[in-house]
Amino acid sequence: MTDLEQRRRAVAERLAGFKIDALVVSSPANVRYLSDYSGSNGLLVITPGESHFFTDPRYQLEASQKITCKVHVAKGPLIVAAAAILKRKKLKKIGFESAWVHYELYARFKDALPLGFALHPVGRVIEEQRMVKSPVEIERIRASVRINSEAYSRTMRNIRPRLREREIAAELEFQMRLLGAEKASFDTIVAAGVHSALPHAQPGAHRLAENELLLVDMGSSVEGYASDMTRVSYAGEAPKRVRDVYKAVLEANLAAIDAVRPGIAAGKVDAAARNVLKAHKLDRAFVHSTGHGLGLEIHEMPRIGKAEKTQLRAGMAITIEPGAYLEDLGGVRIEDTVLVTAEGCEVLTPTSKEFVNF
Amino acid sequence: MTDLEQRRRAVAERLAGFKIDALVVSSPANVRYLSDYSGSNGLLVITPGESHFFTDPRYQLEASQKITCKVHVAKGPLIVAAAAILKRKKLKKIGFESAWVHYELYARFKDALPLGFALHPVGRVIEEQRMVKSPVEIERIRASVRINSEAYSRTMRNIRPRLREREIAAELEFQMRLLGAEKASFDTIVAAGVHSALPHAQPGAHRLAENELLLVDMGSSVEGYASDMTRVSYAGEAPKRVRDVYKAVLEANLAAIDAVRPGIAAGKVDAAARNVLKAHKLDRAFVHSTGHGLGLEIHEMPRIGKAEKTQLRAGMAITIEPGAYLEDLGGVRIEDTVLVTAEGCEVLTPTSKEFVNF
Repeated sequence: MTDLEQRRRAVAERLAGFKIDALVVSSPANVRYLSDYSGSNGLLVITPGESHFFTDPRYQLEASQKITCKVHVAKGPLIVAAAAILKRKKLKKIGFESAWVHYELYARFKDALPLGFALHPVGRVIEEQRMVKSPVEIERIRASVRINSEAYSRTMRNIRPRLREREIAAELEFQMRLLGAEKASFDTIVAAGVHSALPHAQPGAHRLAENELLLVDMGSSVEGYASDMTRVSYAGEAPKRVRDVYKAVLEANLAAIDAVRPGIAAGKVDAAARNVLKAHKLDRAFVHSTGHGLGLEIHEMPRIGKAEKTQLRAGMAITIEPGAYLEDLGGVRIEDTVLVTAEGCEVLTPTSKEFVNF
Repeated sequence: MTDLEQRRRAVAERLAGFKIDALVVSSPANVRYLSDYSGSNGLLVITPGESHFFTDPRYQLEASQKITCKVHVAKGPLIVAAAAILKRKKLKKIGFESAWVHYELYARFKDALPLGFALHPVGRVIEEQRMVKSPVEIERIRASVRINSEAYSRTMRNIRPRLREREIAAELEFQMRLLGAEKASFDTIVAAGVHSALPHAQPGAHRLAENELLLVDMGSSVEGYASDMTRVSYAGEAPKRVRDVYKAVLEANLAAIDAVRPGIAAGKVDAAARNVLKAHKLDRAFVHSTGHGLGLEIHEMPRIGKAEKTQLRAGMAITIEPGAYLEDLGGVRIEDTVLVTAEGCEVLTPTSKEFVNF
């Protein structure tokens, strides 16, 4: 049985627990996870015994070559084609991804089904399955992390004041693609000076100046899998206050990594980082969660945030990314991609966390 | 009154027609259209008299500097914070974007409202308003088209066999960013040889060879606005069959452009392209619509497809992109970004449509 068949089998085995006869899967990442289809218009119907894949004529050729379940090419909305199959097969209790299907699609789906058929919201059932990665998936995440760090290191070799934020971002993404990435796994953040105090700054025309912080938050997408890393460096000799903030954030990053092991609640990992920043009176400057799962999507379950009860398990890939943002000084964030292992964890990101001046 | 205030006013004026007291806007492109916020977590509540903007602490600084409506920073789900305001202000009939809000969010929103409050699906009301672009928006689309074509031309100067598809894609996106684009407006398609027969091919490790078609479909995002262009060229001397298909597709592109004018139904523009390809016995090889609107998103209303009744209006920005895909030969698509004007239309894309051999 292939990896994909195993994944679909695992979903099929959970249908009875939800008291449903079939599950309609339409979110792109879940469709990809279960079928390897990576286009923009695909849908799956999983039943206990078989899987059906639906797409439109643009993908007919690709689907017939690549998809290992029964392929249906539909001209109208895929959900209507799926409803026809469910009707014919008398699969009356139908689960749907309630965290993905929008209200209008839900209403349309309901209308396309005869009386006696019912739709059941099942939430993030496949997202939960995706939290623990298979060996193949871990290899892809490793490749993604490797390419990402190499692209960062090649770009930083030529870094100098006067470059525009957006030029640095362009170079980072160019390098990752030459190294084999499909694309950036999210919009690369390059923020210089006080701009770095915005946790999700967009790179602009601003030119890096002497005595400025430079924050780079980047990820690559390799065979569909994401990496995520943030590093901060300084143009010139950093003043003591900046070095102190850097030291505190690094301490928080290491404390959180130290806490990562199977069985621990995600909220405890978050607390490990938060407590360090609190000791440095920087907890109010840490305005987001400590991390998140990643894989086919850049943000996956579990959330490594306050009071989050999900227990970590071996095979989960997560980020650890505490930060401190000070309006007058700028922002410091240090982020690694980390794999939960049987013994604890492995930091996949190879890039040094020493504070670099250039 | 600023452009943004005018847009919000236009939305507010339509509330009565939907018999609603307030509209909750949560789709990122609509939020950006109405507030200029371009982050990943924003929400607007539009009432007849005022506008409220909600975001999380990560965007507090940015929002307070930039957003011109009342800003609320919420720690939990934005929809819950919005519900609290609606409750306090006794705005009981609440419209929501039913083509965006997923079922789970809808259920959560409903739960957060007291008895006597009701949610009304309003469909694509803001998307409809966005179809006709303002002068400022048209200027941004022009800038996007210009940068996109220049990036194509700079890259094609150095094109040669042996380059990998993904290297060409990397170079195209690098050039557009150096020219000032924020990013590609969609994943750049570079498909060589028979790979070009897949309308949405992903650039891979394949090296461009002699006697192969090269299809490039690319767009830039400039100040949030998209462009979209496809050009096909040939490595070597193209055989007659390829030249014939190219000529037919170009004829279809020109016929559709010729049909574009205010008042015409979008379906008639599609038919103009389709009829030409039919005359060349290529209609079955044309497996998608003739085009689509574009702006803050790469795919907007109206769809330029079969039987589409929406009438074109001056100020709409659309693509015209007929194609023919033949499994043995490859695919040819010729795509321009076109502005509907009072007199007919203006082809914004400056790149030549002559069939290039290199």
